[in-house]
Amino acid sequence: MAEPNGVIGRLLEELTKLPGIGPKSAERIAHFLLAGDRRNAVSLAGALRAVADKVRACRECHNLTDGDVCGVCADPRRDPAVVCVVETPRDVGSFERAGTFRGRYHVLGGRLAPLDGVGPDRLAFAGLVEKARGGVVREVILATSPTLEGDGTALFAANLLAGTGVSVTRLARGLPSGSSLELANAQMLADALAGRRAF
Amino acid sequence: MAEPNGVIGRLLEELTKLPGIGPKSAERIAHFLLAGDRRNAVSLAGALRAVADKVRACRECHNLTDGDVCGVCADPRRDPAVVCVVETPRDVGSFERAGTFRGRYHVLGGRLAPLDGVGPDRLAFAGLVEKARGGVVREVILATSPTLEGDGTALFAANLLAGTGVSVTRLARGLPSGSSLELANAQMLADALAGRRAF
Repeated sequence: MAEPNGVIGRLLEELTKLPGIGPKSAERIAHFLLAGDRRNAVSLAGALRAVADKVRACRECHNLTDGDVCGVCADPRRDPAVVCVVETPRDVGSFERAGTFRGRYHVLGGRLAPLDGVGPDRLAFAGLVEKARGGVVREVILATSPTLEGDGTALFAANLLAGTGVSVTRLARGLPSGSSLELANAQMLADALAGRRAF
Repeated sequence: MAEPNGVIGRLLEELTKLPGIGPKSAERIAHFLLAGDRRNAVSLAGALRAVADKVRACRECHNLTDGDVCGVCADPRRDPAVVCVVETPRDVGSFERAGTFRGRYHVLGGRLAPLDGVGPDRLAFAGLVEKARGGVVREVILATSPTLEGDGTALFAANLLAGTGVSVTRLARGLPSGSSLELANAQMLADALAGRRAF
């Protein structure tokens, strides 16, 4: 590891572009890939080429897929009457790992952020309204992030959906399960109180 | 992100093989690579193919290189009379970043670990002795890790080099610069005392 301009240097440079990978991690990874028979480097390269070439947005919900529609939309056991609206494909992954949601998704492609130039035209609101008007959807769950921008995005979507006749809900706010009360901030406690339910 | 067996799933699997990358980091990295025009995925794939195809051991010192000899061995300003013996190419990188060593290296390819089946025949001792006998080398600095196995490896090398006439040294032990005395353990303090120098 001495030539910063050689092929190893280029690999280190590419690795440090990745989120959460600093120079030290990049070097550890590079040495791992360079050890032994390099099968890992070759297969990682192949996996990268495959996603670069094949992955695109699902025609139905804008989730990422390497087919025409994603696995959720293609699955006949998933209820098309309940649509969970999320910001990114990554959020779909989070829900899928949690494993309790049996409806379908609609990926907006981000959240409204007027200061960063992300207006309604940049997000997939039109398709959502169209879907809600289609007659199949009964409920739209707005599952944007519990932040100012996420809430703004949900509010915007709720207004658009107001005339479509579908029921519009949003995720519960409260204490994060598994955490301790000491760690809850004022907003979490306020949400938890406001949303309290009979025991 | 819903098809665990698709191309994204394969990328996640490859990413989690990397040291320090768990399922969450792999997902963050995958989404980073999938965002936008995928130029990063393509260029990382290219960099990986290049190292897998081109990187090999330097003929002189066993450091990693994409040429015939590594940058250090090819550099006429580096003193061939002083050879720093390290365990891995990664250690070469550490010394090069520190930037004070102006000699050359000899990479052993690991450390002696009889319990893991790493005996002297698995490491580049023969080349080291040959180099020491060549008439050019004046000093061999044993820069193995300050651990039991590293020390054992250094002792083994020192014994091999005993008859060659070169001066054999090892790295200083003491307090780690920038740390605090409170954090030093008994061995560090013992080393620091034993190695004390006139002020």
